[in-house]
Amino acid sequence: MRHLLDTRTLSRDAAIRILDVAEDMAATQSRDVKKLPTLRGKTVVNLFFEDSTRTRISFEAAAKRLSADVINFSAKGSSVSKGESLQDTAQTLQAMAADAVVVRHGASGAPRTLATSGWIDAGVVNAGDGTHEHPTQALLDAFTMRRRRHGDAGRGRDLDGYRVAIVGDVLHSRVARSNVWLLDALGADITLVAPPTLVPQDVSRWPARIIYDLDEAVDASPDAIMMLRIQSERMTGSFFPNEREYARQWGLDPVRFARLSGDTIVMHPGPMNRGLEICAEAADSPRATILEQVANGVSVRMAVLYLLLAGELSGPDTKENR
Amino acid sequence: MRHLLDTRTLSRDAAIRILDVAEDMAATQSRDVKKLPTLRGKTVVNLFFEDSTRTRISFEAAAKRLSADVINFSAKGSSVSKGESLQDTAQTLQAMAADAVVVRHGASGAPRTLATSGWIDAGVVNAGDGTHEHPTQALLDAFTMRRRRHGDAGRGRDLDGYRVAIVGDVLHSRVARSNVWLLDALGADITLVAPPTLVPQDVSRWPARIIYDLDEAVDASPDAIMMLRIQSERMTGSFFPNEREYARQWGLDPVRFARLSGDTIVMHPGPMNRGLEICAEAADSPRATILEQVANGVSVRMAVLYLLLAGELSGPDTKENR
Amino acid sequence: MRHLLDTRTLSRDAAIRILDVAEDMAATQSRDVKKLPTLRGKTVVNLFFEDSTRTRISFEAAAKRLSADVINFSAKGSSVSKGESLQDTAQTLQAMAADAVVVRHGASGAPRTLATSGWIDAGVVNAGDGTHEHPTQALLDAFTMRRRRHGDAGRGRDLDGYRVAIVGDVLHSRVARSNVWLLDALGADITLVAPPTLVPQDVSRWPARIIYDLDEAVDASPDAIMMLRIQSERMTGSFFPNEREYARQWGLDPVRFARLSGDTIVMHPGPMNRGLEICAEAADSPRATILEQVANGVSVRMAVLYLLLAGELSGPDTKENR
Repeated sequence: MRHLLDTRTLSRDAAIRILDVAEDMAATQSRDVKKLPTLRGKTVVNLFFEDSTRTRISFEAAAKRLSADVINFSAKGSSVSKGESLQDTAQTLQAMAADAVVVRHGASGAPRTLATSGWIDAGVVNAGDGTHEHPTQALLDAFTMRRRRHGDAGRGRDLDGYRVAIVGDVLHSRVARSNVWLLDALGADITLVAPPTLVPQDVSRWPARIIYDLDEAVDASPDAIMMLRIQSERMTGSFFPNEREYARQWGLDPVRFARLSGDTIVMHPGPMNRGLEICAEAADSPRATILEQVANGVSVRMAVLYLLLAGELSGPDTKENR
Repeated sequence: MRHLLDTRTLSRDAAIRILDVAEDMAATQSRDVKKLPTLRGKTVVNLFFEDSTRTRISFEAAAKRLSADVINFSAKGSSVSKGESLQDTAQTLQAMAADAVVVRHGASGAPRTLATSGWIDAGVVNAGDGTHEHPTQALLDAFTMRRRRHGDAGRGRDLDGYRVAIVGDVLHSRVARSNVWLLDALGADITLVAPPTLVPQDVSRWPARIIYDLDEAVDASPDAIMMLRIQSERMTGSFFPNEREYARQWGLDPVRFARLSGDTIVMHPGPMNRGLEICAEAADSPRATILEQVANGVSVRMAVLYLLLAGELSGPDTKENR
Repeated sequence: MRHLLDTRTLSRDAAIRILDVAEDMAATQSRDVKKLPTLRGKTVVNLFFEDSTRTRISFEAAAKRLSADVINFSAKGSSVSKGESLQDTAQTLQAMAADAVVVRHGASGAPRTLATSGWIDAGVVNAGDGTHEHPTQALLDAFTMRRRRHGDAGRGRDLDGYRVAIVGDVLHSRVARSNVWLLDALGADITLVAPPTLVPQDVSRWPARIIYDLDEAVDASPDAIMMLRIQSERMTGSFFPNEREYARQWGLDPVRFARLSGDTIVMHPGPMNRGLEICAEAADSPRATILEQVANGVSVRMAVLYLLLAGELSGPDTKENR
């Protein structure tokens, strides 16, 4: 694997390979000394054009547990904000011999530009780009689902027939997009649940069914229900009247949570707005996987950095290559 | 020791144990290679909800000299400032398998909440919370006093009968609070010297005498005089007329410094406002311990991280447990 | 070498020594594992009073590849900005046993003050001070020129007779100053090309010729042409009418670039304002050295940190000492 730019072009086999390596990584994390020498001497740059402390520290922890050196490059307040182009930033990192660049950018497609431009030899990991994708989030979500389904015995397996409801502002969510492509590749059955104003125009071409009623989704007893984070700054204006009304119609409140099947797991990418898209009863219940998702995030990111940097040359990784 | 949340509940024996381990750490710091492998593979998170570069880099240096991995989590500008709760932040760190969390927070009691909530298994070190406590500061102060009194021969000893004057804005000072509890546990004799408007209401229950005249304190020739930092933002409004008047009445100026006994050491937690609470003559004299305090801070923090993380299970650490 | 404060007092032999060690460092950077154990246990503090992400991460990468611990101390938002003096900050770093301090400061001369005050034992590296100097930038520029001239066979050699044109806002440029002193020590022939309003008053005492016409400089076919970065904030007001007019008269545009000799290399300290002081054709041509400069920056900074910290006691390093 050279880069991880999205899940849309990730094949089923490549995805399962990442999840399986993440299982190996998770096994090392339960030991007293969690550090592996695998990436000693490698340099990972966290290139963040948007603040995202959680994602940054997850990648930082993953890289450090593999003994890589980590350099945090927050593009805010740097020469980048003084008008330096992505090209020049990339070339700087190239010249500094970065082995991997983890990039968070406000513009959809920036990581692909970085990876395919020829500016840089480093492996590029998309850590969230605009409203486009956030592939490691989807991988950690799939990892979490597979573990809840199969425990430690999931190696080699996909999510065939696993029923997932994704609820909320699908229009602006890169998490939703990355999950849809990955879950489809893994054979899952996907339902999107969203207000009509927050549905992408091209949703009819997505491998997912769309419904407009959260209660209907709840009553269908999915295997997993994934609540997306409300972006408060988007709740004003044309998309939706206000937070309270959003929570009433689209939040997993105590009543809906009580009606969910006891086997349904409750997922959220974090950070949660408790009382808005998710109630405390759901968030803190044993059926919630929020903390497993965070822990699995480190394992999945260790796996991705390992596969990019520890030399497994790219085989038929992507759907296009098959 | 599981956590270090305050000095109020720290027993004499536990405090002496920390100071003694800090002596061992200080001995390693005079060597050419200052790095120890002790905490290799452990992850220390600096979780700072308030800026404090000095305290953060002191803990960072301490952790790195013990070979721990350090992740700096400045909560400013992160999702925390977008309304994420302390609980969710804690759970994120838990899920990432942080071994210790060093927390600076504007709210008194936040570190205790973090430690006792069950959200987290990591050892918690209070690096300053509101107007409550700053225990490693008090420990490094006590370490400095013991070294000035006994040199390297202080192991196992307390500060029985050592006379300390603490001068300034006691009302808002977590440094004063932590010092009072710790110095009392170690047998010292404490005098608080403060303007009447800057004295806590419950001071009568503190194990310290209070006086309202700095000249009286100076003439009493204490073993140590500790000048607290003026918080300029608090000098406006109801507490005190202005900085100049504060300095005249409550500053260690050249006249007062000249009248102090030649055996009295001059302490300050830093950063100093030279010319306000302390004059340059005092700050730069051989009797000043300001730089020893900073150096001792690294040793004391190494000791605390070592005791939390290197596996010495908690014995009768706290007064409550005795 | 105890400190690296400027190039003005750097002797020819000391400069060549740094460039030669940088060659050794560059050789290690082409290997798969780029990390050397040389500075294990040493602590390098990046003390940045001004933002400069590129310079900071270059020093950070250099220090980490030598296995030093790096502590980033951004003085913005710290107690420094609350009025702490440079002295107190220095003493804090001293007390923390920093082995080297890399300092970027807005005031010319601050690194020298730090190094000569007696506040600190650490080696001090000037990473840019006001309009004074930026010595590692000049060293990496000289390293780049020597490599372009001699390839790998440059060890021990200077730049005798090498013709360099430095173009732009010389008045405010610490890069220009550091280059002039270093290039002069190395025997190069220097031409400054600048608008009359952007020439230092004392330029007649510099070891360089000054001209006021970029076309004349271009037609002279120098061995290297170094375009300085426009500081947009200085383009308003009295110095120059506007960016567009600056670019027309003082920019390396496609017409001028085409007229340059095919042997002339094009240098820029970065980050570039493409389309202003340098056109894309020049910046991206094989004759441009911008990326080599960045890569060489890491090697040169490794060499400087090595010479400061790995114990080579100072011989006749400076012109004054000869």
